[in-house]
Amino acid sequence: MGDHTSIGKGQRRIDAPAKATGKALFSADLALPRMLCGKVLRSPYAHARILNIDTSKAEALPGVMAVVTHRDYSGEKWGVFRYTQDQSFLPVDKVRYIGEEVAAVAAVDEDTALEALELINVEYEVLPAVYTVEDATKPSAPIIHEDHPGNINIHVKIDVGDVEKGFRESYLVREDTFTAPEESYFQAEPYAVVARFDESGNLEIWMPNAGPHLKSKPLANVLRMSLNKVAVRKITIGGAYGGRSEISPADVICALLARKAQRPVKIAYTREENTVCTRQAHSMTVSIKTGVDRDGRVKARDITCYMDGGAYSSTGPIAVSVPFLCMEQAYRMDNVRYNGYRVYTNKPIRGMYRTHGRAFACGVDLQLDMLSAELGLDPIEMRLRNARQQGDYTPTKSHVGSCGMAETILKAAEASGFREKFGKLPPFHGIGIGCNSVQVGIPMGIRGGSQAFIKFNEDGGITVISGVVDNGQGNEHMLVQIAAEELGLYPEDVRLVNADTEATPTDPGSYSMCETFVGGNAVRLAAVDAKNKLFALAARALEAKPEELVARDRKIMVEGEPERCITIARTVRMGLSKGHAISGQGEFWPNVDPKREWVENPSGQVCAAFSFGTTIVEVKVDPETGQVEVLDVWASQDVGRALNPPVIESQFEGGVSMGGQGGMLTEYHLWDGGRVLNPSQLEYRLPLAPDMPNIHSIIVESNDPEGPYGAKEAGMSVAMSAAQGYVGAICNAIGTDIHDFPITPDKVLKALKERKNRV
Amino acid sequence: MGDHTSIGKGQRRIDAPAKATGKALFSADLALPRMLCGKVLRSPYAHARILNIDTSKAEALPGVMAVVTHRDYSGEKWGVFRYTQDQSFLPVDKVRYIGEEVAAVAAVDEDTALEALELINVEYEVLPAVYTVEDATKPSAPIIHEDHPGNINIHVKIDVGDVEKGFRESYLVREDTFTAPEESYFQAEPYAVVARFDESGNLEIWMPNAGPHLKSKPLANVLRMSLNKVAVRKITIGGAYGGRSEISPADVICALLARKAQRPVKIAYTREENTVCTRQAHSMTVSIKTGVDRDGRVKARDITCYMDGGAYSSTGPIAVSVPFLCMEQAYRMDNVRYNGYRVYTNKPIRGMYRTHGRAFACGVDLQLDMLSAELGLDPIEMRLRNARQQGDYTPTKSHVGSCGMAETILKAAEASGFREKFGKLPPFHGIGIGCNSVQVGIPMGIRGGSQAFIKFNEDGGITVISGVVDNGQGNEHMLVQIAAEELGLYPEDVRLVNADTEATPTDPGSYSMCETFVGGNAVRLAAVDAKNKLFALAARALEAKPEELVARDRKIMVEGEPERCITIARTVRMGLSKGHAISGQGEFWPNVDPKREWVENPSGQVCAAFSFGTTIVEVKVDPETGQVEVLDVWASQDVGRALNPPVIESQFEGGVSMGGQGGMLTEYHLWDGGRVLNPSQLEYRLPLAPDMPNIHSIIVESNDPEGPYGAKEAGMSVAMSAAQGYVGAICNAIGTDIHDFPITPDKVLKALKERKNRV
Repeated sequence: MGDHTSIGKGQRRIDAPAKATGKALFSADLALPRMLCGKVLRSPYAHARILNIDTSKAEALPGVMAVVTHRDYSGEKWGVFRYTQDQSFLPVDKVRYIGEEVAAVAAVDEDTALEALELINVEYEVLPAVYTVEDATKPSAPIIHEDHPGNINIHVKIDVGDVEKGFRESYLVREDTFTAPEESYFQAEPYAVVARFDESGNLEIWMPNAGPHLKSKPLANVLRMSLNKVAVRKITIGGAYGGRSEISPADVICALLARKAQRPVKIAYTREENTVCTRQAHSMTVSIKTGVDRDGRVKARDITCYMDGGAYSSTGPIAVSVPFLCMEQAYRMDNVRYNGYRVYTNKPIRGMYRTHGRAFACGVDLQLDMLSAELGLDPIEMRLRNARQQGDYTPTKSHVGSCGMAETILKAAEASGFREKFGKLPPFHGIGIGCNSVQVGIPMGIRGGSQAFIKFNEDGGITVISGVVDNGQGNEHMLVQIAAEELGLYPEDVRLVNADTEATPTDPGSYSMCETFVGGNAVRLAAVDAKNKLFALAARALEAKPEELVARDRKIMVEGEPERCITIARTVRMGLSKGHAISGQGEFWPNVDPKREWVENPSGQVCAAFSFGTTIVEVKVDPETGQVEVLDVWASQDVGRALNPPVIESQFEGGVSMGGQGGMLTEYHLWDGGRVLNPSQLEYRLPLAPDMPNIHSIIVESNDPEGPYGAKEAGMSVAMSAAQGYVGAICNAIGTDIHDFPITPDKVLKALKERKNRV
Repeated sequence: MGDHTSIGKGQRRIDAPAKATGKALFSADLALPRMLCGKVLRSPYAHARILNIDTSKAEALPGVMAVVTHRDYSGEKWGVFRYTQDQSFLPVDKVRYIGEEVAAVAAVDEDTALEALELINVEYEVLPAVYTVEDATKPSAPIIHEDHPGNINIHVKIDVGDVEKGFRESYLVREDTFTAPEESYFQAEPYAVVARFDESGNLEIWMPNAGPHLKSKPLANVLRMSLNKVAVRKITIGGAYGGRSEISPADVICALLARKAQRPVKIAYTREENTVCTRQAHSMTVSIKTGVDRDGRVKARDITCYMDGGAYSSTGPIAVSVPFLCMEQAYRMDNVRYNGYRVYTNKPIRGMYRTHGRAFACGVDLQLDMLSAELGLDPIEMRLRNARQQGDYTPTKSHVGSCGMAETILKAAEASGFREKFGKLPPFHGIGIGCNSVQVGIPMGIRGGSQAFIKFNEDGGITVISGVVDNGQGNEHMLVQIAAEELGLYPEDVRLVNADTEATPTDPGSYSMCETFVGGNAVRLAAVDAKNKLFALAARALEAKPEELVARDRKIMVEGEPERCITIARTVRMGLSKGHAISGQGEFWPNVDPKREWVENPSGQVCAAFSFGTTIVEVKVDPETGQVEVLDVWASQDVGRALNPPVIESQFEGGVSMGGQGGMLTEYHLWDGGRVLNPSQLEYRLPLAPDMPNIHSIIVESNDPEGPYGAKEAGMSVAMSAAQGYVGAICNAIGTDIHDFPITPDKVLKALKERKNRV
């Protein structure tokens, strides 16, 4: 373990210089010869029948090269699962939210394109619309999808153990309801797509994506093209955060325009379009009933959660499941029932989010604080008694192969002085803790594995061919580091061909923490394959056995006898002279239960590994203004193994920013019916660098037996638990509980007033 | 054999539509953002010392972004072999031919670049120059390279058997000398290079090339970059014909300009630059002494050949060897001596050419005609008695695994009615025959092998990753056809990632007939590897043994029971669901003798296989004007196996055009000292479509044991033997011999006059 030359060392990311100097180009920066400007006509109504679309005037406008409507679309409907295919990317019959795509144009410039949009005449019959879960589930509610009369999109049912018996045997039972509205990613880069068809009719397409193969497969399907004619190209990406995994209507529309115009087309979203017309985070109402024994151990839990899914299903079943999975992983619970509902409304579509389920997780943790207070336990002890342990099975029967949950709690508690501070801080000072766990590598159908090729060049350098994409989190450097480590090379010896579906084999994509564990392992195994070939050659040259050899510093040497060595470059040339080019193939499929269902009583291994995070937060609240000042954050996570510690720490910091500082203090959407009132960064308050507290990163390494060098994932469990820690700290500071998130100053003042009234 | 679904069928080339519709883009068509125009300052002197280069005025010109001279160049010298490294791409000390690169500029437009060239002040000391082999080899000749005092660049020595004894035992001995001047490729596409450095300092470069890896390796070397930082990109190529294998000064200069300017640069050669400043064909003087027995069998041969190599070595040793190799392959000769000299002169550099050695081959064949006439044998019988046979070893000890030499002679003779016509045609009508053989796959050092990857997509389509390049001869379709055949797919199921050094593993390049035999075999083996994985899965599903299965029509079926089948797409998805992505790796190295030398008594296997061609030509000569009218050409070649017959026939037609119609009738360069007088298509007469005779293609299949499906190469032996057939036919028509090629009307008239004088 201590022998690693690259793994565990702080290395400068290979992508850093281009990004730091502004040389990196993003999709919206692309300019192709003869490229047209694409613009989308969007529904002004939340719910309306489309009676007619007349594009003749737009088509006649000089400079307009193509207009597309549903008449140009194959009609294939999109959904991650077969049973959730409900979205036509250019709807035929009706629109279901304000901003939905109705038609699109490609013109020689933006002005012409915008003028053409105004010339498209759409006749609508406006229908009654619903904007809340409550309204949508009323018997009188209008039906949004004809085949879902009650507007329930997904209902996930889990019932494990004997919940009623658990409650009967409990010493203390609480039931609380928690809520949070929608929030948005606000990726640094608004969505943009460039599409072109080459002279052989193959599609090339560039867009920010969380998995090129995740994009190419549905694209090929809806465009009725074979996969080898669809090349999703590599491009620098300015963030995904759980979004950008699914195909976007803009991808399809841009391709349709390019095909019709027979010229390249770029659609670059405005910031407002990025907020309204790409999937963002769900609003959520979650009722949690928890029973504990005298020692604080959870005996039973019953959770009901309603999520507003907006107009289409998207990743529905996963979105409903993940909040539950995270908590069943973090905390032991033998008897548990879950009813999770995702409801259709006439609002924009909701999808996965980096801290998806903040109301859920914050609710569970806040309730634990309430229960521990009633039991006279400190929050640390309460969590340690319920913490998930290595070797456990979760309620839905996932085996936990590695687990640093308790260690993250203990290390964060120690570093923060939690036990010394808790209950002893000055008035309106508070400290809180949150614990969470995320799935590492949930495979989506048969796309869950990754394959990689490695080829050696004559001079001893290599090219790694992998479908892994980098959205900004450092995946590219991760691949380079793994290949270099395994082959005894330096990072500069490694060239990546990645994130391009033409040249790279299958890969799940950068969602659900797949890339290090799955994609990284595939590259590691490809490197091992190549190394075995190198060692076979070198062993003969060095008169040693292959198993005695190690690769280090561009050389292969007999372990313990560094002078008995041969350079890797020479070994490669030796192979070539004997008629063998050194190369490697590797693949890794996470060990999951293929029979596990998503909706009806899911049971079996959900993913290969879990990360565990604890965030402790110390705050000061101004009782006059309700403003929260975050003093310090201790972010601790079991990452399995820290491949590149500075990258991991920056992921922790990003997680605290998104999950805590933004997600629990300032970020939420305001609505007027189906219309978002704060779609831009002017009105939606993202934390900026000066807003950020001191963050103390604490890396815990449980060395997962299947992760590459033991690695799992970096930062997601921190992002989740940060939200929980913020809530705990603020409630601790103000001496009462807030059940509606984020905790904005008005809510603090209201809670303080209510507490005063109660006292 | 008859079971093939794709191999042997006429298929439309995948690259045909883009080329036929004009949509294919070539290097000169590329336009990158901020791209600069590069222009090269060339030497006006054939031989001069460079005293000083002052670029200050050019650098000061507004719009000039970079100027480079030898001061910007690493100084690495280029040569295909270590002992031929004599060319600095921006010479330091002196220039050696008119047109040699001295400096270059990159500017915002062409006018500025040209103006800047005029502002570069180079001080020269003019040196005496030599322009012919005769002058260059005189003791008083100026020395062109200081380390080669006699101006002999290469001297290849071969001496096999006992030549003197062979001559003593001969019944008849003749000695003749044959000559031919330089000729040029005149590829449809003049040379052009585009280079850019990406934000990470990696070079991307596009140019017509006969092997991207052949370009990237020397480029990396002279630019002092590692190979994985140099990406030679795929681009449509308008012909190579033996040229464009080597690195060109323009490649290096363009990269240096792009690096210095930090912007993309394009250098597009004029037609004149393409003729003068890229390597073209050698002039040659060859003396052949041949002794035969009473039956016409060659007892001994002694050949001395002088080639004018121009200023630098280029592929020197190969250029001197190949003309001899072709003839030792085509005809049996046990006792043979060869002295081949390549001489430095102050003329532009000479390299390999599709019909390299026309004077040599035409001489050998014409002399056989003379000998057969003296012996009273017909030319067919003469050739059959000397024809190479399967199982033979050549004089330099190459084993001939497959050989259709005699069959091509017989079939061409039969089709043309040679024996019925020979000697019985009207006055000034003639018929002639030429026989030749080329090497299939000469490996250049350790770059001689090819490796390929194949990946399957979920929908059953594949991507083939191969370094093979297509210069226009149909290599891309060849790869597609082989992969489709082996895997039971259709051509449209195959996508190619090829000819890009970033993504593709090593490949020798499209020279010396490597691509079908070597690159095609690598792809075939990768497909076999993938097929084995598919069959293992399908066998379980079909309850059969893998060896009982065949792949056809996108299905895997039990042989003889087509209803017991499973689709390939389903098999692939079955693999994915079991955690395996289907992919394949293959590599093929031609079986050659690594110890074989090029210069001193080469001996051992030179390449894996040989193709054999016979061309019979019927002509009519106008005795008044000397004009030759070619009536019919019968082009017959042992291609091993005809993978795609229409492509092979078009290669035969191209071969007749280049080798015969152009090479033996109209194509040659005129000189004024070191200056080419006819560098453009206006003055250099290439055959056009209406000039072409009827060509009857006769495909002979010897099914080489190592070739993919038995294939060897298509068209090269025809191109060579066409030249010989043209000469034989014309000399037969005019009843006398011409020893200086090409046979232009003035030479015909002169020969007729001399014959008249003799009679």
